[in-house]
Amino acid sequence: MRVLLPDLPEFRALSEHDEGGVPGVTFDHYSRTHVPDGPADGVVLWLVGGDTRTRLLRTPGLKWVLTLTAGIEHVQGHLPPEVALFNASRLHDRAVAVHALSGMLAAARGLHRFRDAQARAHWDAPALPGHSALTTLDDRHVVLWGYGHIGRHLEDLLRPLGAHVHGIRSATPSAERDELLAQADWVVLLLPSTPDTRGIVGAPVLAHLKRGAWLVNVGRGNLIDTGALVDALTDGHLGGAVLDVTDPEPLPGPHPLWHLPNVILTPHVASTTTDLVPRGAQLTRDFLIDLQQGHEPEGRVTPGRPY
Amino acid sequence: MRVLLPDLPEFRALSEHDEGGVPGVTFDHYSRTHVPDGPADGVVLWLVGGDTRTRLLRTPGLKWVLTLTAGIEHVQGHLPPEVALFNASRLHDRAVAVHALSGMLAAARGLHRFRDAQARAHWDAPALPGHSALTTLDDRHVVLWGYGHIGRHLEDLLRPLGAHVHGIRSATPSAERDELLAQADWVVLLLPSTPDTRGIVGAPVLAHLKRGAWLVNVGRGNLIDTGALVDALTDGHLGGAVLDVTDPEPLPGPHPLWHLPNVILTPHVASTTTDLVPRGAQLTRDFLIDLQQGHEPEGRVTPGRPY
Repeated sequence: MRVLLPDLPEFRALSEHDEGGVPGVTFDHYSRTHVPDGPADGVVLWLVGGDTRTRLLRTPGLKWVLTLTAGIEHVQGHLPPEVALFNASRLHDRAVAVHALSGMLAAARGLHRFRDAQARAHWDAPALPGHSALTTLDDRHVVLWGYGHIGRHLEDLLRPLGAHVHGIRSATPSAERDELLAQADWVVLLLPSTPDTRGIVGAPVLAHLKRGAWLVNVGRGNLIDTGALVDALTDGHLGGAVLDVTDPEPLPGPHPLWHLPNVILTPHVASTTTDLVPRGAQLTRDFLIDLQQGHEPEGRVTPGRPY
Repeated sequence: MRVLLPDLPEFRALSEHDEGGVPGVTFDHYSRTHVPDGPADGVVLWLVGGDTRTRLLRTPGLKWVLTLTAGIEHVQGHLPPEVALFNASRLHDRAVAVHALSGMLAAARGLHRFRDAQARAHWDAPALPGHSALTTLDDRHVVLWGYGHIGRHLEDLLRPLGAHVHGIRSATPSAERDELLAQADWVVLLLPSTPDTRGIVGAPVLAHLKRGAWLVNVGRGNLIDTGALVDALTDGHLGGAVLDVTDPEPLPGPHPLWHLPNVILTPHVASTTTDLVPRGAQLTRDFLIDLQQGHEPEGRVTPGRPY
């Protein structure tokens, strides 16, 4: 079995038997500037885009692709139907849940506003008693729109904080969904990007949210109609937004989302951790051993399913 | 029984029997500019300082003082020994724990750095794979220095995040304490300000911490030797600091703590929430009903004890 891997030390170590390598597999490594020639059985796809990705997905003899991402919209539709596709949600679930919680707590405790004041080396006069905007998550209604593994992780983190957590699945009836959204203090988008979810949070949904509600997006930027979001933030209907992903991404220099005071932006890093690459290599190793031993690896994407 | 209360609507409502008032108690209200004359049985002390506080504590006939703070250093030592002192830790514990967690997660996910980049409307190039400084709290050792109610709340919030939580009490032997501090990724100061704790985190303790450890202070500013802290941050020994309290407080304009990149400052708001004043009034009501019914109210401070 010949497999193409990212050219990173942690993945090079997979071919060294002494260091937890995988016997019976021949490895070759690609980078942003180099794609190995010749046929291969599988490609472990990560940290490349554009032409390099396109060339990798056209590798002759390809039987499977493992993308070490949660989303698959960059692969699905670009593969012949006989090539099996696997993704790696479990590599990212936990950090994404922690990142979403971090943004929510930062917003609740005003850390973004205090950071701006810190840059000016001066605190504004304290709010009058009873007029502070600082909250905890106690008794807040948090709606997780998209309720898979990340949602369940996040729910486990939110409950001890006293939040009431509600999940919206694709099977949730629309009347129930609308009722949950209307009472939400926080709406957290955990949806994949599919033809059904693109732009799902547009002006009608935003208008339906409670005044002062906060929107969190750690899913995909194009779930939200950015223009409608900017309007809802500018006119004060929304309390604010925590956005790890945006549309477009990255935002152009003059975009209003950079400058709205209650928008907390991060650059698509929700799943990033110091140990992400070693964890990705470990997942790849487990995947290859499963294949070698004739077991079905985790993460197979149902053909035609957009996530 | 005559009781002096803060001049806030939520406290004025205590004298209105229809709205949950307390029968058998006569109320009068003080403000920053007005202290009622004449004797009183008790004072509920909150949101005043300086001369007003001094005058309130000299009220003739005083039998008790309820300070709606957790700390008592502003009252203890200023009261005759026959006056009973009560504090209100439970009014603040939960929000302080949430605030500390918020700061820790913001630091772990780099939200302070991203906020600075957002202000420039530009993301720096992403870190190389494996070189990201972003973490979760999974498998991190968190030492809670001061392990009372806040510490137990915080522990309950940290455990689902995968942190290993260790408490240091005043009874913890110093060898054990030093061992815990040496292995800590995070040290959270939850201590009161007493003659024994002032400056307890000085150069020797800071040098004893692991390189890259973060320090969190939601206790009192003077627990830390600020000069030693600035040195430990500047030379890179400490990873960073989350400080809700400082010494001096507030920091003067030119102070280096404003500008060190991995220092996250908030203006002594850890216990502040939108509903703090109504909760303070509710606690006062419960306290007075306990007194009227001959029950011992919660929160009595042992005479001579500095917290």
